[in-house]
Amino acid sequence: MIPNLKYDDKGLIPAIIQDIENNAVLMLAYMDKTALKKTIKTGRTHFWSRSRKKYWMKGETSGNIQLIKKILYDCDKDTLLIKVKQVGSGACHTGKRTCFYRNIKKRR
Amino acid sequence: MIPNLKYDDKGLIPAIIQDIENNAVLMLAYMDKTALKKTIKTGRTHFWSRSRKKYWMKGETSGNIQLIKKILYDCDKDTLLIKVKQVGSGACHTGKRTCFYRNIKKRR
Repeated sequence: MIPNLKYDDKGLIPAIIQDIENNAVLMLAYMDKTALKKTIKTGRTHFWSRSRKKYWMKGETSGNIQLIKKILYDCDKDTLLIKVKQVGSGACHTGKRTCFYRNIKKRR
Repeated sequence: MIPNLKYDDKGLIPAIIQDIENNAVLMLAYMDKTALKKTIKTGRTHFWSRSRKKYWMKGETSGNIQLIKKILYDCDKDTLLIKVKQVGSGACHTGKRTCFYRNIKKRR
């Protein structure tokens, strides 16, 4: 059921996580084939942590889990876009709804 | 004006491109520091092509350029989220509006 995706030289593929309710981009994290299988099987996002070198489920400590609604992949088959129902306050470990809460200001 | 972003071991950072009008995720591509500077300076998305090993501007051949509206970065400083006005038919080289037009079907 999983298409032939293109993983990078570390066996990873970036997964953009988008809020199904308002289309906000919540976060980006990385999956390998196993994390993607866990995600599909459990209906909750699982990732590979590049810094901690282990699998993690979003919300495993905070309770802010992400329920899978749709898994899309792009024309090049090297990026995932996962639409989720975000449970709890948000996706970011800072407590914010989205990890993208800062912007680069234009020079005036 | 550019914060201290975390580039990967190839000097790249993924940039999620989102439609400012309806929040659709259009594509993901990679920037290095120079591509990001070009993007900010020109107000149009510029990327580094990992396969062709050169800079490219979105729409340079198709005319479907992307006009920068907002550049956000995430809590880890290792991903960009760029909100754009997409000019023309769409972002995908297939002619589609978004590169994410296929989904992984659930087993029934």
